[in-house]
Amino acid sequence: MEAALITPFVDATLDVLKTMSATEAHPGSPDSKADFKTPGQVSGIIAMAGDQLSGNLVLSFEGGTIVKIVNKMLMESYDTLCEDVVDAVGEITNMIAGGAKKRLADIGYTFAMATPVVIVGSDMEMKQLSPETIVSVPFETDAGKFWVELNLVAVPREVKP
Amino acid sequence: MEAALITPFVDATLDVLKTMSATEAHPGSPDSKADFKTPGQVSGIIAMAGDQLSGNLVLSFEGGTIVKIVNKMLMESYDTLCEDVVDAVGEITNMIAGGAKKRLADIGYTFAMATPVVIVGSDMEMKQLSPETIVSVPFETDAGKFWVELNLVAVPREVKP
Repeated sequence: MEAALITPFVDATLDVLKTMSATEAHPGSPDSKADFKTPGQVSGIIAMAGDQLSGNLVLSFEGGTIVKIVNKMLMESYDTLCEDVVDAVGEITNMIAGGAKKRLADIGYTFAMATPVVIVGSDMEMKQLSPETIVSVPFETDAGKFWVELNLVAVPREVKP
Repeated sequence: MEAALITPFVDATLDVLKTMSATEAHPGSPDSKADFKTPGQVSGIIAMAGDQLSGNLVLSFEGGTIVKIVNKMLMESYDTLCEDVVDAVGEITNMIAGGAKKRLADIGYTFAMATPVVIVGSDMEMKQLSPETIVSVPFETDAGKFWVELNLVAVPREVKP
């Protein structure tokens, strides 16, 4: 997967966390994923589908990390993965995909975004039916770790003469 | 969610299982889901996104059920949820959504299909960020049980004068 497709998601992630939760996130290097384990306990999945680009964004949080991020976002003091926290993961996933969609449109990729799904469970595997490997980007924050995982298949764009 | 949106998925499910795995499936009554537990141990998720219809199809199988269905489909004799079985869940999910897409186009709904994701894990919850409730349709087969779960938001179509 080309870097030009990853950067918009990294930038949108930094933006959304800063704007919504006053959280500074620091991305590590993108790496191809060797297994199908979801790294976090709560994962938001959003699909993107279009003629030029299709695939999934998975945002996976350690339980403690997302509770802290959502508390800052909603000015709450939850200490468990309650329904509001789970819903917020869906909203954050949606906002990051939306931010990336805008950035990708600027470089010529358009697609429709589907409804996010949030999965809660620590012992599970997630496999994507795609010829592309999954690229995982780790993020560090004061609240703890999370991961942005991308599997996108891009159709080469027509170059107009 | 109106019945006209559910029937295409039920019909496509019966078709795909019969054609691909010589399996007769018997659907029960569609019901609104009260919780977020995934009923089966292996679940295929596929998102649909478009201006007229968006949402997710989740196909959830008991472990033993899907192993038997895939064995018939691939003429194998697997006895665990190996990678081929997990991949087949993605393929079956894709084929059912494809069959439903064709049927829905006949009644005026078009959308793009995303890449399927398959989740393996028995103790998990799956929440969809949607104003619609999830409709679950149970199916019985000789191989065991599975469930088709739908969450679709339809945009009312323009009626041409």
